[in-house]
Amino acid sequence: MKIFEEIESEVQSYARSFPRIFNKAQGEFLYDEDGNQYLDFLAGAGTLNYGHNNPIFKETLLDYIHSDGITHGLDLHTKAKGEFMEAFNEKILKPRDLNYVMQFTGPTGTNAVEAALKLARNITGRENVISFTNGFHGVSMGALAATGNSHHRGAAGVSLSGVSRMPYDGYLGDDIDTTVYLDKVLSDSSSGIDLPAAVIVETVQGEGGINVADIEWLKNLDLVCKKHKVLLIVDDIQAGCGRTGTYFSFEEAGIKPDIVTLSKSLGGYGLPFAVVLFKPELDQWKPGEHNGTFRGNNFAFVTAKAAIDHYWSDDAFSKEILAKGRYVSDRLTEIVEQYGDGNFTTRGRGMFQGINCVNGELAGKITKKAFKNGLIIETSGADDHVVKLFCPLVIDMKNLAKGIDIIEEAIKEVCAKEDSIPEQKKYFDPIDLAS
Amino acid sequence: MKIFEEIESEVQSYARSFPRIFNKAQGEFLYDEDGNQYLDFLAGAGTLNYGHNNPIFKETLLDYIHSDGITHGLDLHTKAKGEFMEAFNEKILKPRDLNYVMQFTGPTGTNAVEAALKLARNITGRENVISFTNGFHGVSMGALAATGNSHHRGAAGVSLSGVSRMPYDGYLGDDIDTTVYLDKVLSDSSSGIDLPAAVIVETVQGEGGINVADIEWLKNLDLVCKKHKVLLIVDDIQAGCGRTGTYFSFEEAGIKPDIVTLSKSLGGYGLPFAVVLFKPELDQWKPGEHNGTFRGNNFAFVTAKAAIDHYWSDDAFSKEILAKGRYVSDRLTEIVEQYGDGNFTTRGRGMFQGINCVNGELAGKITKKAFKNGLIIETSGADDHVVKLFCPLVIDMKNLAKGIDIIEEAIKEVCAKEDSIPEQKKYFDPIDLAS
Amino acid sequence: MKIFEEIESEVQSYARSFPRIFNKAQGEFLYDEDGNQYLDFLAGAGTLNYGHNNPIFKETLLDYIHSDGITHGLDLHTKAKGEFMEAFNEKILKPRDLNYVMQFTGPTGTNAVEAALKLARNITGRENVISFTNGFHGVSMGALAATGNSHHRGAAGVSLSGVSRMPYDGYLGDDIDTTVYLDKVLSDSSSGIDLPAAVIVETVQGEGGINVADIEWLKNLDLVCKKHKVLLIVDDIQAGCGRTGTYFSFEEAGIKPDIVTLSKSLGGYGLPFAVVLFKPELDQWKPGEHNGTFRGNNFAFVTAKAAIDHYWSDDAFSKEILAKGRYVSDRLTEIVEQYGDGNFTTRGRGMFQGINCVNGELAGKITKKAFKNGLIIETSGADDHVVKLFCPLVIDMKNLAKGIDIIEEAIKEVCAKEDSIPEQKKYFDPIDLAS
Amino acid sequence: MKIFEEIESEVQSYARSFPRIFNKAQGEFLYDEDGNQYLDFLAGAGTLNYGHNNPIFKETLLDYIHSDGITHGLDLHTKAKGEFMEAFNEKILKPRDLNYVMQFTGPTGTNAVEAALKLARNITGRENVISFTNGFHGVSMGALAATGNSHHRGAAGVSLSGVSRMPYDGYLGDDIDTTVYLDKVLSDSSSGIDLPAAVIVETVQGEGGINVADIEWLKNLDLVCKKHKVLLIVDDIQAGCGRTGTYFSFEEAGIKPDIVTLSKSLGGYGLPFAVVLFKPELDQWKPGEHNGTFRGNNFAFVTAKAAIDHYWSDDAFSKEILAKGRYVSDRLTEIVEQYGDGNFTTRGRGMFQGINCVNGELAGKITKKAFKNGLIIETSGADDHVVKLFCPLVIDMKNLAKGIDIIEEAIKEVCAKEDSIPEQKKYFDPIDLAS
Repeated sequence: MKIFEEIESEVQSYARSFPRIFNKAQGEFLYDEDGNQYLDFLAGAGTLNYGHNNPIFKETLLDYIHSDGITHGLDLHTKAKGEFMEAFNEKILKPRDLNYVMQFTGPTGTNAVEAALKLARNITGRENVISFTNGFHGVSMGALAATGNSHHRGAAGVSLSGVSRMPYDGYLGDDIDTTVYLDKVLSDSSSGIDLPAAVIVETVQGEGGINVADIEWLKNLDLVCKKHKVLLIVDDIQAGCGRTGTYFSFEEAGIKPDIVTLSKSLGGYGLPFAVVLFKPELDQWKPGEHNGTFRGNNFAFVTAKAAIDHYWSDDAFSKEILAKGRYVSDRLTEIVEQYGDGNFTTRGRGMFQGINCVNGELAGKITKKAFKNGLIIETSGADDHVVKLFCPLVIDMKNLAKGIDIIEEAIKEVCAKEDSIPEQKKYFDPIDLAS
Repeated sequence: MKIFEEIESEVQSYARSFPRIFNKAQGEFLYDEDGNQYLDFLAGAGTLNYGHNNPIFKETLLDYIHSDGITHGLDLHTKAKGEFMEAFNEKILKPRDLNYVMQFTGPTGTNAVEAALKLARNITGRENVISFTNGFHGVSMGALAATGNSHHRGAAGVSLSGVSRMPYDGYLGDDIDTTVYLDKVLSDSSSGIDLPAAVIVETVQGEGGINVADIEWLKNLDLVCKKHKVLLIVDDIQAGCGRTGTYFSFEEAGIKPDIVTLSKSLGGYGLPFAVVLFKPELDQWKPGEHNGTFRGNNFAFVTAKAAIDHYWSDDAFSKEILAKGRYVSDRLTEIVEQYGDGNFTTRGRGMFQGINCVNGELAGKITKKAFKNGLIIETSGADDHVVKLFCPLVIDMKNLAKGIDIIEEAIKEVCAKEDSIPEQKKYFDPIDLAS
Repeated sequence: MKIFEEIESEVQSYARSFPRIFNKAQGEFLYDEDGNQYLDFLAGAGTLNYGHNNPIFKETLLDYIHSDGITHGLDLHTKAKGEFMEAFNEKILKPRDLNYVMQFTGPTGTNAVEAALKLARNITGRENVISFTNGFHGVSMGALAATGNSHHRGAAGVSLSGVSRMPYDGYLGDDIDTTVYLDKVLSDSSSGIDLPAAVIVETVQGEGGINVADIEWLKNLDLVCKKHKVLLIVDDIQAGCGRTGTYFSFEEAGIKPDIVTLSKSLGGYGLPFAVVLFKPELDQWKPGEHNGTFRGNNFAFVTAKAAIDHYWSDDAFSKEILAKGRYVSDRLTEIVEQYGDGNFTTRGRGMFQGINCVNGELAGKITKKAFKNGLIIETSGADDHVVKLFCPLVIDMKNLAKGIDIIEEAIKEVCAKEDSIPEQKKYFDPIDLAS
Repeated sequence: MKIFEEIESEVQSYARSFPRIFNKAQGEFLYDEDGNQYLDFLAGAGTLNYGHNNPIFKETLLDYIHSDGITHGLDLHTKAKGEFMEAFNEKILKPRDLNYVMQFTGPTGTNAVEAALKLARNITGRENVISFTNGFHGVSMGALAATGNSHHRGAAGVSLSGVSRMPYDGYLGDDIDTTVYLDKVLSDSSSGIDLPAAVIVETVQGEGGINVADIEWLKNLDLVCKKHKVLLIVDDIQAGCGRTGTYFSFEEAGIKPDIVTLSKSLGGYGLPFAVVLFKPELDQWKPGEHNGTFRGNNFAFVTAKAAIDHYWSDDAFSKEILAKGRYVSDRLTEIVEQYGDGNFTTRGRGMFQGINCVNGELAGKITKKAFKNGLIIETSGADDHVVKLFCPLVIDMKNLAKGIDIIEEAIKEVCAKEDSIPEQKKYFDPIDLAS
């Protein structure tokens, strides 16, 4: 561990929660140098939907490297790229009746968001973008302006401008459809919210604490955008690629966003990769306007194609995810009924689920305890108060059950030691501000 | 090609100059689907200093993948990461008496620049950053503010703030040391240039047209920064990793920048990878303040370590680069003496060289002609007026000679068809503005 | 009129509604070159609370000029300034138990707002400021960022940054206390609303359409600010100086804002003048940090002192305003009951009242008709849909009645010609966004 | 003095240098409460070109007030306004062959600058504006971005964006025409200086230390602007209204700026007043886009017209200023030859002159000493190192001589006490940065 202490920056984060040196991984398991096995319910923060080193893609990748396939080719046309695009078009876009062109950006989610925001601003000639409370879209400066987290925002060191914030679904309480508020500010020429180029939204906010937008809300958001000729960007970097049960997380809402960002599990094997999809009529980029050395990672083209071919040629995988999701949902419901004095709540959609443990201290104790029992799992949310279940979608049912058992056991132990579990904060009850 | 035309965005750039589908690469050669061979003087825009699919790293990478080494591990400690850090510390940093900590950012150069700028701003509590005319530092919003190119800047769609521009070495003519101007504005409390957090500079401006900063100028820049307690960031993404003849491009100047960004050839095999190096006392990051899903690309750790072990354990490679650089330099000097009516000029350092062909139209004709003869080569500079020689550093001497022969032939042919070659623009001669 | 058409810019606004050349004014009357008399219910947009050329101040001013009192003295101490400060302190601040220091800014409201925002940002070291939907705070760049009106914002030509917008009282419907929403975003570290330096608010939004904040809402706003250690700025430029019935518009709420801006009627005679008041512990200005050639208009000191002495030595004037306000209120209530198909509504507080005529076209017809009958009156609000009664507070009761008679007559005539009066838009009813 | 100490903010500046309570003024004299007379070489920082309470305008103003002429009329057409425009058009614009429309902004210089910048940005659709080192254009946020002084900039509390800084005439030494540098960055698409909407310049920088732009430089600046289709804004707030010997300070250069800002002495009597002049084809304002309560100060219309009629109906006054300017110039030249060890230098044009005393400490001692002898005079420049002679243009020759005598005496005394006078800093000599 010495070298990590000596010369790696203090910026490291996950390594603090799981202080081991890992050297091997397979499926839903990580292994450390001493051969200890860990069940992985973090899954690269959503990058490993198909598990670690998925054997189906592995051979394809080894063959490609072996035969000196292009590794780095800037944005040159390569065979690997062409084949990925064919597969994506035939098996993802066409069956869903989505007519998009693809832009390969630098291979990070934040870079895809940067490109999406630029495109929206250039097409409309407007600066403002609407993003939502608790949204997370990356930490490079353009994306960071749209991100809600003050920990990340505070690191900018300069003004983050060009973004107006609106309350996400549920933020003003269950009775208020915040798209109506959005419609009002966009209709009101003195609202002070400049007509935006775009609205950028996650259908489920992962980093924000697994906040799920209602399907109806998403439909209304789409309508409000259309009404005001504002582009709708769905940032599907975390919720996409099957996490919620369908390839895109917005499918259930029946909407067709103007722009979609994908990354994380897109590459299949955990390799850096990111794309922006948008309607062809929006493709007003000039050559090279948004560039980058590593745009178009050819290794990722190869494994991404393999992932599509294997998992998305029919709807079997989708059904499997939804079934697993129901299992998780049932288990979590039982757990929150049994523990937490009735103050814990479940949240999520498909395999994107979690338990709101009211405060971060409690949630942290639970994940720490789980790690002692061999489970890698993290928290999210403004106060790190949500235990986030984020396992590979391909996880074996037995291991899924085992992981949840570990969580249950951890919750049981932690709650046993607490005098009482605090209630969920309820901002929209009448409150006595003076108290 | 159909799929590229159908669903790839118009943003593509290099693919327009070299409209082939490539499927294989080795060393200094690319091959298209039809088996045609191309000599590569573009080299991933500086990412392939060790050539395509370098066989020395290839086996190591295949072994790693074969044995299910960690592919994606967020910022967890992995064996591959630890070994890379050891090698980098022992063979790169220590021998050069550089005491740096490392931050693994999202695996793109622009992300490393974003992190460097944030760090500098947070440490100093100042917003402003000085960057230079013709500088290129990436296109995500934070980095883009420091980039000079109007083509890229124009795509932002919002104000690019927080950066003040100063003239690079030579910009005000040969007689003026622009660091003196910098010293003046920083000394003058009414200059309107707010005291900056940092100065960010390339020692050789690649995208800007292969503008080489004088060693003396770099020393003075370092002194001015120290005098005003401003951090010096060397963006060594393109010029570093041996391109100029030493590992870091600033070694000859004997300076130790506060912050250094590296990417491109760092990974060795062309894989996405980026780091920020900085003095330990500057490591004031809070955990996870700057994060990203793909920070710490483990495949790249493996090949980057192999590259360091093989090429940088002694100074043999450095000597080889310098020798090749002298050969290039000699050849280019001959060429500009023979063609271009005395109006062409050479420029560069080490294996980072080019020919200023006065205007972009001319340079474009030359690279187009070269491509017809099997050479992939690009232009750079504000007007794309510089033919940029950017071949792998490991290129065989015979192929280096062959590549330059093709360039010479192309220049000869192009110049023969021109009535006359225009003179270089000289802004700092007395000009008749009224004319 | 020729010269106005020839060389005055198209930016002129009020002159378009009242295309006469005026050359004399007294009390509540304006006179044009042809000797026509107009009853003035615009009153310099709130600058002429004491009427035109108030005879009580006039002699004082003439004497001052006659005796060569200082006209322009930068920020030098002058006798006129000292006497104004004494009067303001003894008769305005002390009786209200307000402990403020005074800053004399450039003599415009927008300049006072600029100073207030700078001060708040400097003291707290924070950039963000909260302002409200439909707020108006001026059009110089710093103040404009806080202003809601898109007509004015659109003229900026640059990004307006550093301000986050929150819904004003009533904006989300009558059932929602928007200070609770504010409390939530300030409590939520991932809300994306950066902790602000200050909240800036009008107690009654004049330009925004005479939106009245509930007294309870103002109290809650004060509590939320205190809870989060955010400064409260009341922009009392239009609502202050007696307009709502008390000298400051926030007196009824029993709050003591950290910072208060005053202008418009402060000078008494209609002369340019503006101040910022703030708690002494906030006085962290360095000498001359915010300066300006005309800060401290000595003519205005003289008339402002006279206004305070005459009108604010006891509470008689306050009672008079409130009584007149009740009269206006009663009359307007009768009018909206009788005309407008029940769709017109009254709004306002004290002598700051208006009729919401649902849309701007209707309101414009009414004010146009009124002008034909000798009444100068304007509209306000996002759609210019509110007929704004803004007469001098010193108006004779007979003339007040006469003015309202003219309005009533105009409404009657306009409504008679309309087929039907549209209903008020109700955003927070369930709406069919799809329709 | 008690009330000033008690409740006036610490922001006060001039009052600190001249701690008296003034109560009367006439011509070039100020009087304090105790009847002491002071010769005024500060003249309202350029607002009192026609002296204090000029008797020629006084009667006109008294008559106007007496007859209840409009005091406050928003932007309504008034007789006073029309007559002022007629006079300005006939006696100022037409004789100089200037075809401008007028915009009456809020009555402060900074507000006129805000309007000018907005107009330029809106017309061109560009954000960037070029301003110069040591420039001063006001402290409201839009103008402040163009101002160079760090004391004022530091008070903003937010990023000042939208302005790029270029070196003023002489800033890079006498041999370099900085308009050539400007031409280069505007011609170079990778310079990083975005094509600006406008260049804003003072022909003589007052606050910046009485830096005089060469007439040739102004001509070149105009040519560079025209070449790149960039608007030229001359901020003539301090240098205009006769200060340099002609009504506009740019007349000698034979240029016709696109936009001109005027304020300070424009009103004649020291009353708040400001205008923006621009070519008719630039008048693309929409009604009320830039507004303000006190735009169009009618008292100032009256005195401004009187000033034009009396002083600018022929060229006698201009000749008088130039003659006085020559006298000042001769005297100052003698002084710097006799005192200051040859290190003092003169600077200025017309009656806009000063002595560069190398450092601020020295200059401060001189002005302090002068004040003891009855002369009010201030310093300017980044280090307050320039003693600024800024007396009324109408000053009696005897008093002008007397004022300079006091300065000379003060310099003599101060220099006698110094061991040695430091040399002027010379940035563009070769310097040893390492030392």
